[in-house]
Formats: sequence, structure tokens, C-alpha cells
Amino acid sequence: MRTIDWDQKKNCVTIIDQTLLPEKLALLEIRDLQSLIEAIITLRVRGAPALGAAGGYGVALIARNIKAKDVPGFVKQLRAEALKLKNARPTAVNLSWGVERVLDRALDADNVQDIRNIALEEAKMLAEDDVQRCREIGMHGAELLKDGDTVLTHCNAGRLACVDWGTALGVIRSAVEAGKNIKVISCETRPLNQGSRLTAWELAEDKIPVTLIADDMAGYVMRKKLVDAVIVGADRIVEDAVFNKIGTYTHSVLAKAHGIPFYVAAPLSTFDFRRKEADVVIEERDPDELRKCGSRMLAPAGVPVLNPAFDATPMENVTALITEEGVFRPPFDFKAIEKLKM
Amino acid sequence: MRTIDWDQKKNCVTIIDQTLLPEKLALLEIRDLQSLIEAIITLRVRGAPALGAAGGYGVALIARNIKAKDVPGFVKQLRAEALKLKNARPTAVNLSWGVERVLDRALDADNVQDIRNIALEEAKMLAEDDVQRCREIGMHGAELLKDGDTVLTHCNAGRLACVDWGTALGVIRSAVEAGKNIKVISCETRPLNQGSRLTAWELAEDKIPVTLIADDMAGYVMRKKLVDAVIVGADRIVEDAVFNKIGTYTHSVLAKAHGIPFYVAAPLSTFDFRRKEADVVIEERDPDELRKCGSRMLAPAGVPVLNPAFDATPMENVTALITEEGVFRPPFDFKAIEKLKM
Repeated sequence: MRTIDWDQKKNCVTIIDQTLLPEKLALLEIRDLQSLIEAIITLRVRGAPALGAAGGYGVALIARNIKAKDVPGFVKQLRAEALKLKNARPTAVNLSWGVERVLDRALDADNVQDIRNIALEEAKMLAEDDVQRCREIGMHGAELLKDGDTVLTHCNAGRLACVDWGTALGVIRSAVEAGKNIKVISCETRPLNQGSRLTAWELAEDKIPVTLIADDMAGYVMRKKLVDAVIVGADRIVEDAVFNKIGTYTHSVLAKAHGIPFYVAAPLSTFDFRRKEADVVIEERDPDELRKCGSRMLAPAGVPVLNPAFDATPMENVTALITEEGVFRPPFDFKAIEKLKM
Repeated sequence: MRTIDWDQKKNCVTIIDQTLLPEKLALLEIRDLQSLIEAIITLRVRGAPALGAAGGYGVALIARNIKAKDVPGFVKQLRAEALKLKNARPTAVNLSWGVERVLDRALDADNVQDIRNIALEEAKMLAEDDVQRCREIGMHGAELLKDGDTVLTHCNAGRLACVDWGTALGVIRSAVEAGKNIKVISCETRPLNQGSRLTAWELAEDKIPVTLIADDMAGYVMRKKLVDAVIVGADRIVEDAVFNKIGTYTHSVLAKAHGIPFYVAAPLSTFDFRRKEADVVIEERDPDELRKCGSRMLAPAGVPVLNPAFDATPMENVTALITEEGVFRPPFDFKAIEKLKM
């Protein structure tokens, strides 16, 4: 079962509703743009590569639903709704990338039905392509792990963050597939607990040994020499920094202080060659994510909260970038990496 | 309102029930040993200095309730019930210390009524003494803070952990009392959220500006230059390390990497001059503290969990120790500090 897919019979997008995990594994059928935007904002579907696929399938879904029959009217509406979709999560570069890729290809066609067909075809290719790239990331990254290693990871850069296989967890899956014994320490990843809800769940499903810790225990386990490598995913990689789930930077500082390699696993679609750290605005999320757990108050109502969704890890804290085109080490040659993307 | 006190009219112990915070501020009247033991086990009263006072008031309460009129029978029962109280949290050194201190003094008397009176008098003195020491810690520590500083703290080393005023938060209160504008960043402190439930609550009550963050955001706020100092409390200080709530070590590494002073505020009663880090066993708590929030599952049932209650911060990460006898800086002269305690 893929994280995000197209249901050929029902003609709709299906996603694993990640807000219901680990209690319930359920597929959600998505038939219109509003439902898709809601699913993205509420993190029913999340993770950079999965959002790329959501962007692609989203354009196919929009195209399918537009009633206009004249090409200029159809294209105008398609562009306008695609823009709404891109804005559902502005920091996630893959969402925009997926939307743009499918839109560009589909708008080559000169009639409405062809635009619809090409959009869906391209969205499916994008999804297949994502699985293939995760496999290649896994293959390259697996060589960095030794038999018996324990890897600390943060948030979920697993198959639930992608179409399948995963980036950071893809590296671990590929190492296990290659016959290595790998153990994982999963940080719970406050405030939304993607580490406990998703990473622990998908590794346990695959029978890969996983131990859950609170985020504030990362220093403790590193000092106890329980960690051989840190591997995380990325939401956006710019020349001077890696944007990823809040907390990633903290782990990078801890890894450096303890002499533990800090790896970032991500497809080239995550690289943003036009921006630097200072150009990227980090979104602030709802303060109640920290004040409440369900209906239970964890903090005084109305207490001020900082709740950035992401942080930036400067490149000097990164030991290597693991991509589908291979492993890159400092000094990172962004010009050369950009050529590989084209 | 004190965290723990003696109600002169009702002749009982009163405590702020910390399990009801931040939703409700309620005083609980405790009239017998069983209720006190229940309150300690369920963390209605917690924090090393507050547990010392609970031990003292507990002995006074036991003495008040014993019916025996002959001294040998009375003393035998008093000792037996005091032992039960000490065993409510056997690893909490301050609880035993409070029980012993009051028991020793009361058993000097040679009749039942005098034992009762002296026990209560000594328990009150112990509580007053705790407030006074926190005030002195605050006074010494306040000199380390500048007008306009923002202090990051972890867990709750506030008045709710003591009889009143607090240790780490006592330093902040004293600085505010001295006319300085101090802002606080409170880490929520997983898995039991003492930072969001208790620290954010008591600072908001005192109108000291407080912002709540998830523990994994500590590196982010330090890199953004939003933190001028870290101040935490301590559960036990040995020659080579400070034992405190899990997560403290992570903050000490982050502070060092960002050139931010890392202060530990604690009374001399927290110093253990006979042990080193390697001699102290850290207790593991219930794995469900990470797997669940109330009845809600945050992780797959049965997933392995690491849940140490404390961690050890090596002395090289500590900028200064703030005590009632003054501020000590490295190299820490433990022999000299021990003399001050005697």
C-alpha cells in the first residue's frame, strides 16, 4: 500500500491518513482540490517527496474537475487552482515542484481532454520516479552503514513521507535488505510526534528494531555511545543550509559534539539552487499543538508559544548529503549537483 | 500560597495538587499518612526541596494521629509509620532527609505531647529554612542576569518544586524583584511536561513573560540568539556531574556550542560529596509515558522505549553553580563547598 496513489477504478487520489496512525491504518479517497488542501494542511499526507506526488496528483485531480470546455478558460482556472495547491504548505519546495512539473507537461497539449490525460500520466510517472529515486538513495546510503550500527533519526523520512521506501529510512531499509543488522533510535519529534506515531510504526511493521526516545534524550544516548550515525530527511536544501523538521538542528549540534556522522538523505528535487538560508521563511504552526494533547491542556491557555515547523542546519554540521545520484561530501559543489538535476 | 504548608486552624497539611495544574489550582487538605503517601506517589507534590518539607510535615501529622499514650508504644508506632513515609519514594533523598531531621529532633522529648509539639515546630522550621535558602540562591544568582536577558529553563525548578520561591526560577524571581526585565523560555520537558504544565503556569501567575517551546527547539532559539543564559535546577550534584531531569545534558551541549552560560541553581542539600557520576544509578520510568497521552496512543503499543528520569551533565559543561552560599565557578572546589555545608 502506497502512501499516496491514484485509484484507477474510482478515479481519485488515495492517501494513507497519517493522522490516524498508529491506532488505525486507513485509506482516504480524495476527489477534489479542497479535500487535498485540507489533507495537506492537517498533515494527513506529509513529507517532502510525498508532497511532490500530492502536487502532481493534485494537478491531475484539478484538471479532471474543471468544467470549462474552452482551452483558455480551462488553462486559466487550472493555473489559479494549482497556485492555491502550492500555497497549502509554502515552505515545502517539493509541493510546488510537483505541481509545476505536471502543469508544465500538461500545458503542452492543445485540448482539454489531452491536458487531463497528460496530467494524470505525468503525475503517475512522478510517483513511480519517486519510488525509484528512494531506492537509489537507499542503495548509495546503505554503504555508509556498517553491520550492527544504530542510527538515530528524527521525524519521519520513511515510506510514509514518500510514495514508498523512504529517504532516511530508505537508507536503513536498503542496508537491512543488503543483510546488515541495523537498529534505529526514533526521536518522538514534538510537537506532532511523527517519530513515535509514524517512524516507530513503519519500522515495527518491517520488523526493523526500533527504540523510541523523547527528543531531549538525544544527547543522553549519544553520550552513552549508543548512536553510530544520525540520518534525517530534508524539506529543502539550499547552498548554505538544510531545512528540515524542527529539532534537526539540535541533533546536528549534538552529533558534531560527540563525533557522530550526521547524514541528510533527500532526492535532488529537494534542492533549491536559487535560494540561501536567509531567503527562506519558516512557517509558524498553531500554538495549541504545544498547549494541548487532544482535549487535555498541557499548558496554561493562551501562554505564548514558539512553534516553527522547521529549522535550518548549516552545511558545516552536515557530514554528507545522500542523493539518488550518489553521496556528496564537503565542500559541497552545488554547481555540479545542479547539473545532475537537469 | 505555598506548595506545601501546615494549616494552623484545621491542623492538617495542605498542598497544591500539581496533577490538576494548569487547568485548576486547588489546595488539598491532607489529614493522615495514607493520603500523604498517595499524594507523593502520584506526584501531587514533587520536587526535591518540597519532598523534604513533605517528610517533615508528614512526621508531625503521624505524631498528631497516634492514639497511644505511653511513650514507648507511641515512639514505636511513630518510627514504623515514618519508615512507610520514607518508602513512598525510596530514591528521593530529600524525603528521607526531612523525615529523619524531624524525627531525630522530636524524639529528644520525653512525653507524647512534647514529641507532637516539637515535631510540628521542627517541620515548620525546615519549611521556613527552605524558603530562606531559595531566597539566598535567588539573590546570588540574580547578579548573573542583566536587565533585558532571556533565560532558557528546563523542567520545573520553581516554587512548585520547593516550599516557595524556587531555585532556578528563584534566581529569575529575584532578578525581577531587583527591577530587571527578564523573559523566560520554558522547554516543555517531555515526557511529563513539567515545563508546560508547571513552569509556564507559575511564571504566568507571577506575570513574568514566558514563552513555551518544545525541547527540540532549544538549538533553534539559541542559534537565533534569543537566549542569554540557561538556568536549571538539580536533583543531585556530585563531584564530576550534575544529575537533573532528562534533557538537561542536551541543553548544556547546545549552550556550550553557542557560547551561552549554563547555570545550575541548587541548595547545598543537593550536593552529594560521597559519590561520583559512575556511582549513581538513573531510574527508568514507565515506557507508556512516551507511548501514550492520557488514553490516546502516541506510538505503537509495546514499542521499546528508553525513558531515563534523569541525565548527568559533566562539570565541564557547567559555567557556574548557584547556591545559598554564593556562586561557584570552575574549577569547582568540592572540599571548600563541603565545609560550607557543615
